[in-house]
Amino acid sequence: MITMASSLEQLRQRLALFPGVGPKMAERLALYILRAPDHEVHQLLLAIEEARRQVIHCPVCFTLTEETPCRICADESRDPRVLCVVEQAAEVDAFEKTKAFRGRYHVLHGALSPLDGIGPQELKIAELLRRVHADQVKEVIICTNPTLAGETTATYLAEKLHPLGARVTRIGYGLPMGGDIEYADELTLTRALEGRREI
Amino acid sequence: MITMASSLEQLRQRLALFPGVGPKMAERLALYILRAPDHEVHQLLLAIEEARRQVIHCPVCFTLTEETPCRICADESRDPRVLCVVEQAAEVDAFEKTKAFRGRYHVLHGALSPLDGIGPQELKIAELLRRVHADQVKEVIICTNPTLAGETTATYLAEKLHPLGARVTRIGYGLPMGGDIEYADELTLTRALEGRREI
Repeated sequence: MITMASSLEQLRQRLALFPGVGPKMAERLALYILRAPDHEVHQLLLAIEEARRQVIHCPVCFTLTEETPCRICADESRDPRVLCVVEQAAEVDAFEKTKAFRGRYHVLHGALSPLDGIGPQELKIAELLRRVHADQVKEVIICTNPTLAGETTATYLAEKLHPLGARVTRIGYGLPMGGDIEYADELTLTRALEGRREI
Repeated sequence: MITMASSLEQLRQRLALFPGVGPKMAERLALYILRAPDHEVHQLLLAIEEARRQVIHCPVCFTLTEETPCRICADESRDPRVLCVVEQAAEVDAFEKTKAFRGRYHVLHGALSPLDGIGPQELKIAELLRRVHADQVKEVIICTNPTLAGETTATYLAEKLHPLGARVTRIGYGLPMGGDIEYADELTLTRALEGRREI
């Protein structure tokens, strides 16, 4: 702790609000910020402001982007009738790296978790259903994480999507259970895409 | 990674420069900053600027403070002739919490580590020697960490301090309170035996 300088203690407490940052880590970060050269701190403050000003949700697929619509939604060469549904924007990047998918994405911004108060209203589910209907989507590949919340979401989406006539598939279980899509290697992700099945 | 929004990726890279922050953690922090409410981010930026503007090194003991000299150096009830020498300012707080020490401190801002290019010039050692001489200090308790760098520093300081006539002591080694003898490492047990006292 750094009680000798109250503004430093203030900064430490602010940093301790970050997810995954404990009191000791917050102190390390605060001391680093204190000692860093002016230009480095200036760059950090600038980066925070830039990111907050420029990053928006794509109005079509809800990924994080600086363009409207995002680069993928604007790419005419990509099939708008095959959607890959993911929980988080960072997962779009993971799939893009495989170069194995030429359809479009839809970012839910989370997964159903009733105990945490996350229901269908909290996610971009209504927007997905509207999009599937409007674009006459022929396949929705549900790529939520292989976790309890991800599975629950997949089942819920399948129920809602079936009446719309689209084929609903789940990403193949080349993924290790309990793993994280974002950090799966590219081959595993490619195999998982190939191994998708009807649900 | 978040390549879809370059300003977000910029922010992630900035945060990844922090000590102990890996790429995954940096991404989590960047996304948190992106989603946080305006007032929270404003408070964070303010805290960074305040800390950087207000926090200085005490000109006497070199701890982090907002006052000149720091509260401890200004406290007349504390014995200026007993110094506790520590590596980092945060360690002053650790000792203050014990309420067991009524002398003054001296913060070295590191420990000797020639392989990392940290020699006596990089630390507040000349200032310590001047202070011991000027204040006619009668005891210097060397409280550097029980690591290779801390031990090296303690030995070096002892050599430099002896000619000045001050008593030079090293903080006691032994079992940590609440520790378990069975799991203590051999070096700690050896030091604990050496440090035994009459009861």
